[in-house]
Amino acid sequence: TSAVSQSVGDGQSPEKRTKKGLSFGERAQLCSNAVSRRLFEVMETKGSNLVLSADVTQSLQLLQLVDKIGPYVCAVKTHVDILEDFTPDFGTRLTELATKHDFLIFEDRKFADIGNTVSLQYEGGMYRISDWADIVNAHTVPGSGVVQGLKQVGQPKGGACLLIAEMSSAGNLANADYTKATVKMAEDHRDFVIGFICQSRLTSDPTFLHMTPGVQLEEGRDGLGQRYLTPMEVINNRGSDIIIVGRGIIKADNPEVAAKQYQEAGYSAYLSRLS
Amino acid sequence: TSAVSQSVGDGQSPEKRTKKGLSFGERAQLCSNAVSRRLFEVMETKGSNLVLSADVTQSLQLLQLVDKIGPYVCAVKTHVDILEDFTPDFGTRLTELATKHDFLIFEDRKFADIGNTVSLQYEGGMYRISDWADIVNAHTVPGSGVVQGLKQVGQPKGGACLLIAEMSSAGNLANADYTKATVKMAEDHRDFVIGFICQSRLTSDPTFLHMTPGVQLEEGRDGLGQRYLTPMEVINNRGSDIIIVGRGIIKADNPEVAAKQYQEAGYSAYLSRLS
Repeated sequence: TSAVSQSVGDGQSPEKRTKKGLSFGERAQLCSNAVSRRLFEVMETKGSNLVLSADVTQSLQLLQLVDKIGPYVCAVKTHVDILEDFTPDFGTRLTELATKHDFLIFEDRKFADIGNTVSLQYEGGMYRISDWADIVNAHTVPGSGVVQGLKQVGQPKGGACLLIAEMSSAGNLANADYTKATVKMAEDHRDFVIGFICQSRLTSDPTFLHMTPGVQLEEGRDGLGQRYLTPMEVINNRGSDIIIVGRGIIKADNPEVAAKQYQEAGYSAYLSRLS
Repeated sequence: TSAVSQSVGDGQSPEKRTKKGLSFGERAQLCSNAVSRRLFEVMETKGSNLVLSADVTQSLQLLQLVDKIGPYVCAVKTHVDILEDFTPDFGTRLTELATKHDFLIFEDRKFADIGNTVSLQYEGGMYRISDWADIVNAHTVPGSGVVQGLKQVGQPKGGACLLIAEMSSAGNLANADYTKATVKMAEDHRDFVIGFICQSRLTSDPTFLHMTPGVQLEEGRDGLGQRYLTPMEVINNRGSDIIIVGRGIIKADNPEVAAKQYQEAGYSAYLSRLS
């Protein structure tokens, strides 16, 4: 099915691309930020708007999983702080896989402190996240200092940041005003902020990426408030760009088959939005 | 000046205690949660409502600092993920100092993800926070799932949680509705949530602790949006219980002398609120 995904990526005719919006490839051309440009290009080239949420707790298991799923994704999302056996070469090994399979690395740290603290958390500690993650994310509740603190560290290293504008969990407090303030914060820091973690499209600016977690092939919820939407709902109906899938792939009997299904479901939803 | 702080702790007459509210010792008696009871008791016994924010990046430096400042604080707040040289015995060594100097350990992780993820981040990874931290904190933007996920891990181990209800940084998005929803979330999870990170008293319930960061002896701000208030403003005027001080102590020429000054300033402000 590698051929299938390939054909999905190549299968859009020029007239289809512009009817309801720009294609990922066209949006790549508009980006001044190198990270968003590269991500849009990878999405177009690989025919994938799928991000794997690699939520496993062993480094080796994570690297093996990513080596298998790598061909089907545009990025891999990590929670480095749940790895029981982290070693300093983890970043290097993950970066090697990113080169091999052409994907970006997104550490889902959800920075959420004052600027001085997040700059230390991003650059230092055991994890040295800014050395290996192309993308990190931040909550906006601390105000724009969180972005300034991260930018100070990440920008010179070619990193970029997504802001959490909406959440998928039940009873979350990111209401309309919160989301609006978050979009404003992104617009004020375009040189470092490349988009949003969100539930739907938030801005017509084609250079901003919209990534949506909490995606499964069937709607539902877990026992701790997480709510799931389908790829079609997220990409076609709500106008997001990227589906983030964790348990739908990792907990599947065959994660590779599941990843292909999600890649196809996500990209088909994108193509049907364009058409 | 150890004698001074001792006399501050002992110096309140019974009639002073009840005029404008209960003393820390009286509030300890009302707590059903073992962590909040213990913290109130430590505050009363040591005459300290000062938390040290131990924001240094080397473990040894942190442990030496804490060994010096321990006598003057009711708790030590860590960001374990900024330590360059963390080793698994860090928690043990910090716990030994906590026993030696009678303080609690508060890991300022600001958990801010869905329940499933924060439970992994709290219990596992390299840091195994739930093994050594008496107290952690969480943002409430993800909704109550974040509390449920943490409680699942922390409650059986005797841990407790503070919710971030207000922030000290400029332009933060924790507005009145956000704060109100946070207080409600705390009330709904009293068996695990023992209070707030806040800028002022939020509830008349005497069992909830109020801790305020961004405190220095003089008002001001840093270059990344952090704003400072004085101990008198925070404790006496705004009715918070605990001052959290980082740079005011750590960056002082003599951190031990500075810690004593903050202990005295914080506790005097508390006594003047009671009187």
